[in-house]
Amino acid sequence: SRSINLAVVPGDGIGQEVVAQGLKVLAAVLPQDVKLETKEYDLGAQRWHRTGETLPDAELDSLKKHDAILLGAIGDPSVPSGVLERGLLLKLRFAFDHYVNLRPSKLFPNTATPLAGRPDIDFVVVREGTEGPYTGNGGSLRTGTPAEVATEVSLNTAYGVERVVRDAYERANSRPRKKLTLVHKNNVLVYAGHMWKNIFDKVGQEYPEVTTDYLHVDAATIFFVTQPERFDVIVTDNLFGDILTDLAAAVTGGIGLAASGNINPTGEFPSMFEPVHGSAPDIAGTGKADPTATILSVALLLRHLGYESEAVRIEDAVAADLAGRTPEAVRTTDEIGDALAVRVAS
Amino acid sequence: SRSINLAVVPGDGIGQEVVAQGLKVLAAVLPQDVKLETKEYDLGAQRWHRTGETLPDAELDSLKKHDAILLGAIGDPSVPSGVLERGLLLKLRFAFDHYVNLRPSKLFPNTATPLAGRPDIDFVVVREGTEGPYTGNGGSLRTGTPAEVATEVSLNTAYGVERVVRDAYERANSRPRKKLTLVHKNNVLVYAGHMWKNIFDKVGQEYPEVTTDYLHVDAATIFFVTQPERFDVIVTDNLFGDILTDLAAAVTGGIGLAASGNINPTGEFPSMFEPVHGSAPDIAGTGKADPTATILSVALLLRHLGYESEAVRIEDAVAADLAGRTPEAVRTTDEIGDALAVRVAS
Ligand SMILES: CC(C)[C@H](C(=O)O)[C@@H](O)C(=O)O
Ligand SMILES: CC(C)[C@H](C(=O)O)[C@@H](O)C(=O)O
Repeated sequence: SRSINLAVVPGDGIGQEVVAQGLKVLAAVLPQDVKLETKEYDLGAQRWHRTGETLPDAELDSLKKHDAILLGAIGDPSVPSGVLERGLLLKLRFAFDHYVNLRPSKLFPNTATPLAGRPDIDFVVVREGTEGPYTGNGGSLRTGTPAEVATEVSLNTAYGVERVVRDAYERANSRPRKKLTLVHKNNVLVYAGHMWKNIFDKVGQEYPEVTTDYLHVDAATIFFVTQPERFDVIVTDNLFGDILTDLAAAVTGGIGLAASGNINPTGEFPSMFEPVHGSAPDIAGTGKADPTATILSVALLLRHLGYESEAVRIEDAVAADLAGRTPEAVRTTDEIGDALAVRVAS
Repeated sequence: SRSINLAVVPGDGIGQEVVAQGLKVLAAVLPQDVKLETKEYDLGAQRWHRTGETLPDAELDSLKKHDAILLGAIGDPSVPSGVLERGLLLKLRFAFDHYVNLRPSKLFPNTATPLAGRPDIDFVVVREGTEGPYTGNGGSLRTGTPAEVATEVSLNTAYGVERVVRDAYERANSRPRKKLTLVHKNNVLVYAGHMWKNIFDKVGQEYPEVTTDYLHVDAATIFFVTQPERFDVIVTDNLFGDILTDLAAAVTGGIGLAASGNINPTGEFPSMFEPVHGSAPDIAGTGKADPTATILSVALLLRHLGYESEAVRIEDAVAADLAGRTPEAVRTTDEIGDALAVRVAS
């Protein structure tokens, strides 16, 4: 009989609330014969305040044994910026070699977008997750003095770039439009940028059916608002992917809807699924958080674990729910979760 | 009697065409008693193909003697990406210590924007111009092999950050709303990010009337499309500024309208003014390029040299011209330049 052994890291702020809805929908969509086991991990701001720990080795070892991780949100204004992001969220992504940070963007019918003309948006960003400017490689000298020097080193390897580029080609090849865009800034970041472009071109020879193009990151942001329908699959570096996917979320209905998967395609480590949004401490506890991004992340989780039809059921339920939303009928976090749980169960 | 000794670098693609219009308007707006001398520099793709040179020392020395530089656009697909950008454009910005890269964004009435609801946009980005990931500090090892490693080092100094932050506070303080937003990514790029934030807070104590806030760069892109009216002055690093100002241009009518000044506030070196757009080789020679961005850059140039009323005359002329534009009446580069020259002269 089948089973899913899931680690749950609610984290901070609205994390707890949205994860609860994700679990509700997960329980509702799973076939009877699948045994769902969950274990909750107390990690985040409160833990840090209490113990000074962000992610102890024992917890990391324990997390490693799960089939997948569902994460809510990490970060709180009471903790110095970077402590939890680097010490917990990025530590997980790096330790579990989540080199494919998958972020689909789709403008569902009836969903508000700041763009006039409601373009037809349906693309996915494959963001590199384990290299680039995110490695934490840098430092500062004479910190806090007028003579301070601070560096941030973007580390990029052919090993790391090729595997994520290959993953992106595979995804592009399996989609109807078969189009892949590389985004970088190779006219300025010439070392990393040329390596990315060379590997992109080289791997592309193995995918003759995939149409490719290249955009500088600055130009890409222009197309995100003027011509987002031109994109199918985008592959890009860790930092550019961070920036572009928030912008993508904004033009497709907001970060309340943006899902993501931090994927380790080899299966050596558990993959981790989380909404793109942060912990939103300003609305925590008010019931205003939209759990849809987390619920769509659960769909990505199910797809990753091989439950394709269940993933589609969640996505269809979300599309139907969004189609029925009206600006007047504002629902709570819980009510949206309930509505989606009902839809996927039926 | 007054005089302006201007260096002109038309550069590549549409550079020549738009710069011609900028000079036309400049000549038309200047009072009779101001003697305008211009010297054209043959730099860019053609020069590189002919001689292999991007910016020889002799030319750099000669450029240094001018009061200001007007630049069209640099870059061509026939030249490997980065050669002209690093060897010419960025070399000028770095050699002449253009630490304030000034990029105003304003949504003029009657101008097309991809944003529904036509928000009231009027902000200016103060982009650091001489540090960050743009220093060219990096390298690659085992280039072209599967074992390649490529680095890009972002270099940041308290010296460099403080002077640009101070410039941004001055600008914010002189504007009606007196609001300054720092954009960085200090939850990930903790070394550079914390230095920026600390200096931002410290200098802020000298400007008690300026309201401040901080945004991560990913969140900033969201607000650029959902709430751009919230911004007044933004100060940010070289790379984030590059990305944000293209997005800003896109939401305020496109890069055909976006002006910029690469400013050396001390006056030790000539400042350089250029449209934010590139060389657009696809439309070069067709008369389709909009010279407005270059003409607005001429306004920034005049303001920098102390010709405030002439700068305002150009900006007013552009506003009036845009107000009268209709989608049906498409004008050539030359016709737009002529129309603006007539307006500023009257
Ligand atoms: C919280 C932060 C470290 C994180 C990132 O920069 O990757 C977030 O913005 C994201 O996109 O998941
Ligand atoms: C051409 C390129 C080097 C340049 C930059 O990245 O600064 C351009 O994009 C700009 O914004 O002026």
